[in-house]
Amino acid sequence: MSPQPPVRLWPDPEGLGPVTDVYELAMMAGYYAAGMENLVASFELFVRKLPPGRSYLVFAGLEQAIGDILALAFKPEQIEAISQWPAFRKLDRSILARMQALRFEGDIWAVSEGTVVFAGVTLLRVTAPLVAAQWLETYLLASIGYPTLVASKAARCRSAALGTPLFEFGARRCHGPHAGFLAARAAYIAGFAGTSHAEAARLMGIPPIGTMAHSWVQSFDSEAESFRTFARLFPSHTTLLVDTYDTLEGVQVAAAIDPSVDAIRIDSGDLGELAWQARAILDQNNRAQVKIIASGDLDEHRIAELNKSAAPIDGFGVGTELVTSRDAPALGVVYKLVELEGQGKVKLSPGKKTYPMAKQVFRKRGPDGRFCGDHVTRADETADGEPLLARVVRAGRLDRSLPTLEEIRRHCTEQLAGVPEHLLKLDAKPDYPVTYSEALEADARRLMRR
Amino acid sequence: MSPQPPVRLWPDPEGLGPVTDVYELAMMAGYYAAGMENLVASFELFVRKLPPGRSYLVFAGLEQAIGDILALAFKPEQIEAISQWPAFRKLDRSILARMQALRFEGDIWAVSEGTVVFAGVTLLRVTAPLVAAQWLETYLLASIGYPTLVASKAARCRSAALGTPLFEFGARRCHGPHAGFLAARAAYIAGFAGTSHAEAARLMGIPPIGTMAHSWVQSFDSEAESFRTFARLFPSHTTLLVDTYDTLEGVQVAAAIDPSVDAIRIDSGDLGELAWQARAILDQNNRAQVKIIASGDLDEHRIAELNKSAAPIDGFGVGTELVTSRDAPALGVVYKLVELEGQGKVKLSPGKKTYPMAKQVFRKRGPDGRFCGDHVTRADETADGEPLLARVVRAGRLDRSLPTLEEIRRHCTEQLAGVPEHLLKLDAKPDYPVTYSEALEADARRLMRR
Repeated sequence: MSPQPPVRLWPDPEGLGPVTDVYELAMMAGYYAAGMENLVASFELFVRKLPPGRSYLVFAGLEQAIGDILALAFKPEQIEAISQWPAFRKLDRSILARMQALRFEGDIWAVSEGTVVFAGVTLLRVTAPLVAAQWLETYLLASIGYPTLVASKAARCRSAALGTPLFEFGARRCHGPHAGFLAARAAYIAGFAGTSHAEAARLMGIPPIGTMAHSWVQSFDSEAESFRTFARLFPSHTTLLVDTYDTLEGVQVAAAIDPSVDAIRIDSGDLGELAWQARAILDQNNRAQVKIIASGDLDEHRIAELNKSAAPIDGFGVGTELVTSRDAPALGVVYKLVELEGQGKVKLSPGKKTYPMAKQVFRKRGPDGRFCGDHVTRADETADGEPLLARVVRAGRLDRSLPTLEEIRRHCTEQLAGVPEHLLKLDAKPDYPVTYSEALEADARRLMRR
Repeated sequence: MSPQPPVRLWPDPEGLGPVTDVYELAMMAGYYAAGMENLVASFELFVRKLPPGRSYLVFAGLEQAIGDILALAFKPEQIEAISQWPAFRKLDRSILARMQALRFEGDIWAVSEGTVVFAGVTLLRVTAPLVAAQWLETYLLASIGYPTLVASKAARCRSAALGTPLFEFGARRCHGPHAGFLAARAAYIAGFAGTSHAEAARLMGIPPIGTMAHSWVQSFDSEAESFRTFARLFPSHTTLLVDTYDTLEGVQVAAAIDPSVDAIRIDSGDLGELAWQARAILDQNNRAQVKIIASGDLDEHRIAELNKSAAPIDGFGVGTELVTSRDAPALGVVYKLVELEGQGKVKLSPGKKTYPMAKQVFRKRGPDGRFCGDHVTRADETADGEPLLARVVRAGRLDRSLPTLEEIRRHCTEQLAGVPEHLLKLDAKPDYPVTYSEALEADARRLMRR
């Protein structure tokens, strides 16, 4: 008898309907049963409070979320299995049949990717039949939260790097093999120069970056032979990893390679000190043009320190700290019902004030071009400043082409130039003015009184 | 003109070949170019040092890693794109053709999933032609690291919960929509009773758990009506969320539902205090059988506190802290070349001692049945104790059926019963004896001298 094949866990991209919490399915069934499925609902996605160590966020993940939502559907075998679950077994079969026929046919408004955003501000709004709007909750939160965390961390690294190129090296430390795609894209949006993730690079046109691992060096009888073989094979694209045995000896060996290589990479030890010594060795050997790439547990703080010491480093490879957003690995992003059939809705749990009604956000800039405050209004109001939310999906179809990745990246650069100076310090508090219109305050008061 | 469709990022499960770091591809090309591709290599996967706050790990993620590795391949369009990258453009076309024909045809030995493991011990060994063994590095690390983090955190929650059932509620906080599958499975292995992730539950047969969201309650004119509607629809599977407006009033409303519901869920506020008050209200209303489920930022420490205060909680929903492994979101798991054509290999970077040669691990138990030490030997030695590594893949084929998820879960329960008492405290230091055989020490010394 041949062995049972291992269970693989790649979802069918055309069957993402149940990639969500069970309670969303229960509520969807409930809305059908109560005849409430077509009530027009608006849900909004926002962050209540920035995570510790963040003074702003870079919004990311929208394109993948939208692509998946436009294809969101249940396959017959999925509905069949759900109908057998103890809690669902007594449901009217017609309800499950209607779930199987369901597609997202509502509207989605969102901030554009790469935009700098703050707590308390609507980032995305879904207006759709209640059953469909509810369906999106878990999927949207999981699709937006992580890329936003990585883009935000990447922006901090960029700000610390003061122009030195940054490379995303984190695939192996991501939370599973799919997160690597999201991380590579988010880092690129925030200004990283490339990724080590080969398939992410291919699919999205991000510059692929690669050097060698210690195992390459170990596989040869000598470090010199391993370097020469690599340099011959990848002329004018050779970065040699010099710390397999002794870093400075490795630099000496790299400096002797002819023709000269492009760069060396140092991945352990005191990166600043080693970069100085490596630079000296390279220069003494007429290798002034050979660059030095540093990697190994780098984050924005370590990058800032290295830059402060003026260490001669020409590129930083950032992995684990970036792709796990280690100091803030979760984003408290929520998706809340704010309006149902034109009536404002709020949840009143202590410490969790929310404003009812579908909203728009207007951002003002000071004379220096930097952001000086966001004003949140009802969607039917206008105010001074640039409106941040635009419709991207209308009646279940893309309203217009989304920006390309390069456009998003340029937009992010422009946005990062707008961040108020005091928020750019790595230890800045999230001190940014967000105000709410009189109409929203009045709506909130009215609902609180009830 | 119709808008460009959004880019989706779901990889083709039959084209995972380039879901790896660029440097793996560069090295693979290099091994072909140097005629070294068929040298027999052994790489080993292990954790150098446990993350802070962990005194043991639960090994998980093997089944998905194996399933993907057995299918690992490049699609023609992937090879074509890679051949156009600047660094790869000058490569001999025959090398890329050979990469396209490559499949994994080596052997894999591994510890079984659900096993409790420690730093410094081989968890998995790949013995294969050098080019194929190198190929697996990034993929294996990303596939094993995250599930192991979640299973390890889940085991701590279980140990704090002292028998109270635990439910995995984290899908929305995972690092992207795929990580939710891995988290649900890992938590279940370590003893969680169910998951809120509907598709993970369906695919793997994990009990699906669901209640309702605040939006359900808000969608009705009154909390009572929202509760009644839900209870009618899901009889004998009704858990009511009571904290949308005022928690204790919500409990009163839930206590008045006829027939009686199964449980209430409290998701905010002082969970211990509210559980006591809710219990009193339920009992006064003849609702002694209605259970209380607590959720909201729970981790093993908070669960232990609640249990210590004897709060009348019948189940814990654990989300963010578990699925992001928030206090330790990255695992320093590495994959190192240890043997090439029978010769031991090591990397000598300071602070990173490794032992050369393919290895086996023997675990000893004390008279109380608990683990008292792991002894690492060369693969060709034997020693007292239970060998932890078994062959799962032979010449690129599954050697025998992998254990089912239920078998893995039972194995994990048995393993957790073997963890030494002193390691079970939540603040325990990772103090567990790991020793290396004389032969390994001698091999290491010999290589260090060179």
